[in-house]
Amino acid sequence: MTPDRLAQQLAFLLEIDRLKQINRQTLIADGTRRENDAEHSWHLAVMANLLAEYAPPNVDIARVTRMLLVHDVVEIDAGDTYCYDPAACLTQADRERAAADRIFALLPPDQASEFRSLWEEFESRQTPESRFAAALDRVQPVLLNYHTQGRAWQEHGVTRAQVIAHNRHIEAGAPRLWTYIEQLIEDAVAKGYLNP
Amino acid sequence: MTPDRLAQQLAFLLEIDRLKQINRQTLIADGTRRENDAEHSWHLAVMANLLAEYAPPNVDIARVTRMLLVHDVVEIDAGDTYCYDPAACLTQADRERAAADRIFALLPPDQASEFRSLWEEFESRQTPESRFAAALDRVQPVLLNYHTQGRAWQEHGVTRAQVIAHNRHIEAGAPRLWTYIEQLIEDAVAKGYLNP
Repeated sequence: MTPDRLAQQLAFLLEIDRLKQINRQTLIADGTRRENDAEHSWHLAVMANLLAEYAPPNVDIARVTRMLLVHDVVEIDAGDTYCYDPAACLTQADRERAAADRIFALLPPDQASEFRSLWEEFESRQTPESRFAAALDRVQPVLLNYHTQGRAWQEHGVTRAQVIAHNRHIEAGAPRLWTYIEQLIEDAVAKGYLNP
Repeated sequence: MTPDRLAQQLAFLLEIDRLKQINRQTLIADGTRRENDAEHSWHLAVMANLLAEYAPPNVDIARVTRMLLVHDVVEIDAGDTYCYDPAACLTQADRERAAADRIFALLPPDQASEFRSLWEEFESRQTPESRFAAALDRVQPVLLNYHTQGRAWQEHGVTRAQVIAHNRHIEAGAPRLWTYIEQLIEDAVAKGYLNP
């Protein structure tokens, strides 16, 4: 252990503490407040391990878990971009890339490279691991939106067609979960949680 | 996929959402509020992957990560027991065992058994994985207490001797991190963050 190396690792760990202050649009399950990125990342990491049987064959779940644990750290600088806000989405990639440049560089070079690559893999969705991770990143907010009677959907006037278009890539990463989520979306429309 | 099986998995995932509402004594790094168990579990899971080089040889980091992701779910029923409160500590084991009985049983039997075992392994600290996980569970609050000028320590009148006694088992799970934490504790005393 070089003290410098540990100092860099701890500086990164303290920096990412700020993820606990980045609020998302989604409410937590009891509806009392919005979820933050640290809570969201924890929930997804549990899901990766608990729902591994729905991943494509031979997916490396430990890698999926690492990816999910850091997939949102860029939002410390870039903020949470609401997925149904087209203007914000236009600049999202640039803002997040600049954030990745700064934040992962706090780590020792070998780990900076490893975790930056994991984030890029997640964003690109070209591997079975990143497709499964990205699927869970969509499944979780739909579950929370459904169980809070669609309040976040309604606040933003989101429609069924938008939710389907936005979440359809769940099918590529976890086809059996997509079957379930499709039913949940239809049920949300039937119950008035989501605009037809 | 049996629908019943997925329904049980999702019921567990919704139940553990309540961990986002269980507050700990420790403040988050900017000192604005207390940390909750979901955020804490996320932070520890990142640490397990980032600080793996300080674990004993051949430790299975994926197992450590799974353990840390669920190590606090019993606090949904049992609450967060403040580690320097002897009265609360007397009843802690019984309260947490009853919570484990209820919460893990929400899962399909194979996963209930797997995750219950992970929790018991964490509590017993008899394996290198659980010793490393338990070490990180102590390192993180010391880091946060130090970086918030010891406010949580001072609110409870905790002394240097108590902090050392409570955290000494870091040495068994991550000896090189204990060397660093010992220095941090002495520095906290020198700076007036912690009572001598």
